[in-house]
Amino acid sequence: MEVVGKRRNRIEGIEKVTGEARFSGDLDIPGVLDARVLRSTYPHARIRSIDTEDALGVPGVVAVLTRDDLRDMDPYYGHCLRDRPILAMERVRHVGEPVAAVAARDRLAAEEAVSLIRVEYEELPYVATLDDALAQGAPVLHEKAAGSGDFHDVNLSDAREHPNICHHEHMEIGDVERGFAEADEVFEDVFHFPMVCHYSMEPHTTTARFQGGQLTLWSASAHPFLIRSELARLFGLSMTDVQVVVPYVGGAFGGKSYLKIEPLVVALARKTHGLPVRLEHSVTESMLTARRHSARCWIKTGVKRDGTILAREVRIHLDTGAYADNGPRVVARAVLRVHGAYRCANFRSDSYGIYTNSVPAGSMRSIGGPQSVWPVEVQMDRIADVLGLDPLRYRLEQLLGRDEQIRPGSRGIDGDLREGLAKVAEMLTEAGPPPAGAGTGLAVGITDSEANPVSTAIVRLLSDGNVVVMAGSTEVGQGARTVLSQIVAEELCVPFERVMLRGTDTHTTPFDRSTGASRSTTVMGTAVKFAAADVHRQIKAIAAEQFGVDSERVVLKGGAAWCGEARREFAEVVSGFFGMPGGELIGRGYVRAGGGISPILPIFWEVGIGGAVVAVDADTGEVEVQRYNSVADVGRAINPRQAEGQDEGAAVMAMGHTLFESLIYADGQPLNPNLVDYRVPGFRDIPRTFESCLLENGDGPGPYGAKGMGEGGIIPVAPAVCNAVAQATGVRIRELPLTPERVWRALRSADTEGS
Amino acid sequence: MEVVGKRRNRIEGIEKVTGEARFSGDLDIPGVLDARVLRSTYPHARIRSIDTEDALGVPGVVAVLTRDDLRDMDPYYGHCLRDRPILAMERVRHVGEPVAAVAARDRLAAEEAVSLIRVEYEELPYVATLDDALAQGAPVLHEKAAGSGDFHDVNLSDAREHPNICHHEHMEIGDVERGFAEADEVFEDVFHFPMVCHYSMEPHTTTARFQGGQLTLWSASAHPFLIRSELARLFGLSMTDVQVVVPYVGGAFGGKSYLKIEPLVVALARKTHGLPVRLEHSVTESMLTARRHSARCWIKTGVKRDGTILAREVRIHLDTGAYADNGPRVVARAVLRVHGAYRCANFRSDSYGIYTNSVPAGSMRSIGGPQSVWPVEVQMDRIADVLGLDPLRYRLEQLLGRDEQIRPGSRGIDGDLREGLAKVAEMLTEAGPPPAGAGTGLAVGITDSEANPVSTAIVRLLSDGNVVVMAGSTEVGQGARTVLSQIVAEELCVPFERVMLRGTDTHTTPFDRSTGASRSTTVMGTAVKFAAADVHRQIKAIAAEQFGVDSERVVLKGGAAWCGEARREFAEVVSGFFGMPGGELIGRGYVRAGGGISPILPIFWEVGIGGAVVAVDADTGEVEVQRYNSVADVGRAINPRQAEGQDEGAAVMAMGHTLFESLIYADGQPLNPNLVDYRVPGFRDIPRTFESCLLENGDGPGPYGAKGMGEGGIIPVAPAVCNAVAQATGVRIRELPLTPERVWRALRSADTEGS
Repeated sequence: MEVVGKRRNRIEGIEKVTGEARFSGDLDIPGVLDARVLRSTYPHARIRSIDTEDALGVPGVVAVLTRDDLRDMDPYYGHCLRDRPILAMERVRHVGEPVAAVAARDRLAAEEAVSLIRVEYEELPYVATLDDALAQGAPVLHEKAAGSGDFHDVNLSDAREHPNICHHEHMEIGDVERGFAEADEVFEDVFHFPMVCHYSMEPHTTTARFQGGQLTLWSASAHPFLIRSELARLFGLSMTDVQVVVPYVGGAFGGKSYLKIEPLVVALARKTHGLPVRLEHSVTESMLTARRHSARCWIKTGVKRDGTILAREVRIHLDTGAYADNGPRVVARAVLRVHGAYRCANFRSDSYGIYTNSVPAGSMRSIGGPQSVWPVEVQMDRIADVLGLDPLRYRLEQLLGRDEQIRPGSRGIDGDLREGLAKVAEMLTEAGPPPAGAGTGLAVGITDSEANPVSTAIVRLLSDGNVVVMAGSTEVGQGARTVLSQIVAEELCVPFERVMLRGTDTHTTPFDRSTGASRSTTVMGTAVKFAAADVHRQIKAIAAEQFGVDSERVVLKGGAAWCGEARREFAEVVSGFFGMPGGELIGRGYVRAGGGISPILPIFWEVGIGGAVVAVDADTGEVEVQRYNSVADVGRAINPRQAEGQDEGAAVMAMGHTLFESLIYADGQPLNPNLVDYRVPGFRDIPRTFESCLLENGDGPGPYGAKGMGEGGIIPVAPAVCNAVAQATGVRIRELPLTPERVWRALRSADTEGS
Repeated sequence: MEVVGKRRNRIEGIEKVTGEARFSGDLDIPGVLDARVLRSTYPHARIRSIDTEDALGVPGVVAVLTRDDLRDMDPYYGHCLRDRPILAMERVRHVGEPVAAVAARDRLAAEEAVSLIRVEYEELPYVATLDDALAQGAPVLHEKAAGSGDFHDVNLSDAREHPNICHHEHMEIGDVERGFAEADEVFEDVFHFPMVCHYSMEPHTTTARFQGGQLTLWSASAHPFLIRSELARLFGLSMTDVQVVVPYVGGAFGGKSYLKIEPLVVALARKTHGLPVRLEHSVTESMLTARRHSARCWIKTGVKRDGTILAREVRIHLDTGAYADNGPRVVARAVLRVHGAYRCANFRSDSYGIYTNSVPAGSMRSIGGPQSVWPVEVQMDRIADVLGLDPLRYRLEQLLGRDEQIRPGSRGIDGDLREGLAKVAEMLTEAGPPPAGAGTGLAVGITDSEANPVSTAIVRLLSDGNVVVMAGSTEVGQGARTVLSQIVAEELCVPFERVMLRGTDTHTTPFDRSTGASRSTTVMGTAVKFAAADVHRQIKAIAAEQFGVDSERVVLKGGAAWCGEARREFAEVVSGFFGMPGGELIGRGYVRAGGGISPILPIFWEVGIGGAVVAVDADTGEVEVQRYNSVADVGRAINPRQAEGQDEGAAVMAMGHTLFESLIYADGQPLNPNLVDYRVPGFRDIPRTFESCLLENGDGPGPYGAKGMGEGGIIPVAPAVCNAVAQATGVRIRELPLTPERVWRALRSADTEGS
């Protein structure tokens, strides 16, 4: 292949390192007003009154938005459950929830006006923890919420066992009771995973303009097309009335999925007489807008003496915060992801999303993955330990083989997990055994990629031989534009430099379901490949006619059509067809379940395999990850440089929730939603030895055998590190992050109890 | 039909009447600099030196552009002949030619800087008139000029008979000498047609930004795709490096065809370090940028005693001004258009474009049409008069019949000229005979539409049943968006309101050759029809599968697919196909000669038929057009309201060159390039009785039998009015416009000479 598989620099690289690249907040939108938001300082309270009189008197203030402006509409939205109002209506449910918003000529005026809005609250008892939430007589966060018609693949039950259960998923395979009855040993553990924040370099930023019934949005969004349809529904518009423009996005990681700040900005823009309104979050505001689910996972596994897994039962409680956001979908992923990558004929799991009075939790890189793979993999290590098995050999024996199914009707495993694990083990040990006092840990995880594999694309071959790709995948830093351009260049047989792919504008870019779930290379990649193949067919047929031969005798290569030694540049072919130096050839590509992508779900299994060598300072409890190796089973790396970068990025991100990241609440208040008190991984958190290896067996459903990646790398880090800590210290820690204090305490208490 | 043929209001009407519609100059482009241009005050001079030092010292000035900035490139451009420099290089060739340009933070600074640029000229003898130009030893305007590779359909001859002949076309049919030899009577006349200006409400306006090798243009242009390729060529870019955005255009009439001010603005933007530069012409500047060709037409016709035309010989000299612009193409049209709409087996014509030191002449509504139809039609009337024939009956006898060819291999007449003329005559006389002293005049003209029928389009059906049309026809006020939307709605069987069609952006809108030559309804109309039909086929097939029937049993209607009584909205069909409320169906349409449009040229004949009743005030020479009737043979009116509006608009525009419009030169200086001294038609110039009638025989090559219109209406006005004046006064005037002074003088001299 000429372009695919090559280590290309990202096409927007120079733009980004020179600061030329423009993100939503960089766009100069004439006459734009600044918006600021008044947020709840209470975890749970009834709003008695809102007085905006003084705020409106501030010079420069154009509009103040309160719940009273939303009485003419149904202000509730949510892609799973419509439980979230654009602004707090009767109650606030978490600290940081928007209560009012101001649009003003400048930011200072907006801030002053916000400070002058007087809200009278009546405090209500709040729900702080999962146990609080599920207690009898607990305060109820949502008396009712409508299921969203768009939410297909999770069953919403009106008959909730407890009113604070937002969503419950149940999965059962085989006969769990018999499995446990036949087991020689049963292992039971409870794990606690922290609240963590996405922290994208670019906080949420949206500009909205409502003019003449036409709504235009410039938004840092990973879901422009879902935003279009949801905003159309909310504000009574058609899809063609709503234009969503997405330039570069400075990181998303799920935090920019579905609607975030857009409805609020649009509602404010309804009041500014056509003037555009921009809301740019601070980091703190973004941290108070979305987060990953914290979780408690109870896991019980019955095994034979040789380690064969006979039964597994899991209950995972995911803290979804004050509103559902994408929580139900996270719950639906966790219920399967907690199965683990091993043969287990008898499996039962229950996954719950639980409302609490905290920041709403939604999608985050590998939704429900880290919370569910970590317990499985730490327990697997404990089983090996107790049974006296080598953790590597034990895993290799138990891993699902290629094409093995977790449950009938689902896609079998489309990779070679054993090869991947063996590769990690080999990488880990090639530098010799760990130094004295250090430990080694391994982990394997698989996650099912999300459904709705729907993408469409247009590829246009211009009359000078250049190519325009119109594809709605958002460039969130993952390199989508580069990869999609490579696929088009390959399929259309043109030099990579001739392909142009720009940002998304829903008025001109054809539909894409979303950017997320590691789907862009596989699903949109297939759509652009189809569209390019459509043009390929056309140019071949036209060139054949021009050569006066059958189409089979024409070969495309290097931006030209060849018939034997005769050669015609694409520019000549197109111009010849149209009879002038103009015209263009247009190709389209549709991908949907059963059309371009197999209808059997998941679309693919995303695999994450990692190994760590860690040293623990027994005096301070500090954990140092000295070496980390990752294997990413990518099927086929369209761009190995980018694939490695993504896999490494995922592993570094996971160092955060493994070692130090945690959003902490006390008395219903978030204590550290800022970059001083909440630490995210930096360069110094990268292990000294840090390598990623790509497994390329061409077994993915995407172009050239590619499959999704970039999320898998996040799941094995915490268990690999925990397992290495256990090997180094003999102590298994079941709560993240592994802060020095927590490790130190665990080491101390290990002197008295067993692990 | 549900949508086509209906009197729809234009879709952008409300936007325009409320002032919301945004034209190029209305776009808020952040950081935009104002440009002003220093123009030549000499008709012909050598530039000795340009001193910009003082100009550069003006605070706020960012860049000053002179010929020295163009030494690194070939600065000559032109779509027919590359004879025009971006800025005057060695010489200036007409008053108003750009010599230097300034970009500054504000307009006043730019104007001040322009006033401080010192240019030393060496005056040269200049060419004022056609006779001056063709004289032996006349000053030569262009020693050489390269033919442009894009200019296909005119033969450029290096062997020019005279160095000031820019272009010469010759046409010969039959045996002209024998024809004249057999003639009973020979008529010979010379006609003089004035220089006139386009006067669009929006003068030329272009903003250019050159940033990181990417050129973005916002321009009031009718030819965005030609601009893209020409600028790419001039500045060494690829098509994907050049983005041309065209919002609404406030009138074009040919004055915004091909490159006008764009190269100058781009060259200036090369010097502003990425800051955008906007040049907004004043009306005067636009008048000094482009105009219609003035012309002298010698026409000799030999007839039998019964009026049968045996031979015609014509020489038409078109004053093309200082640069070729689109002159060669105008020359190429005139050579045929001067044939007239009558049977004439022996025909010879020579059409010349002549350089003079005046504003360059290019395309203007019916290029070469008014200048060539008027002499034919006035002479026809004189022939009838001399032979004692009724001018109506004479014309009806001599007119070309349906499918009759002017020359072998060309398209036969695709309309019923007799029906149209009879209709005008009927309309004229239905109010009774003209009042005493008034006269009645008729005229018929046909024009061949230009070649290169190349358009492409994309139609997208969204998952809520709305439709996006991507078509590059520029909305110059002619109603293209409305007509194209009607065609798509009809073809796709959706309500008209569901169709959205926005402005052109060459990065997202597929190729269109140009907006002009009355081609949009016919050519682009066919492209969008094909694209819509492509979607129609898809939705039918998908719906059939969903109904579980054969595709033939499915009928589309009202935005839904029907199978008997069963009905599925398009939204359901699309969503069902993609398995979610998303996805979209994409259709493409290509039109080219031989693909969608017959390869036989012209694409269609555009017909203009008119009749006037005029009164002449013998004391003042004032001509009053009391009644004017026009018949537009439109094949099929996609939107009768708009078609009538266009036809009436053309007629009113023609009142200008007929009665009062003329750009006057003295001593090489234009005397009246402003709206005070140069009068354009206003409401009070509309005849008291003014009606247009559409002929709809479905005989056009466009959608539903439509053919181009909107230019035809301009051609019969001058001859009909002149013929009416002759009937009223007995005096034939062979020079336009019919100013009171000219008419009064003609009436006076008629007392001594015959007409």
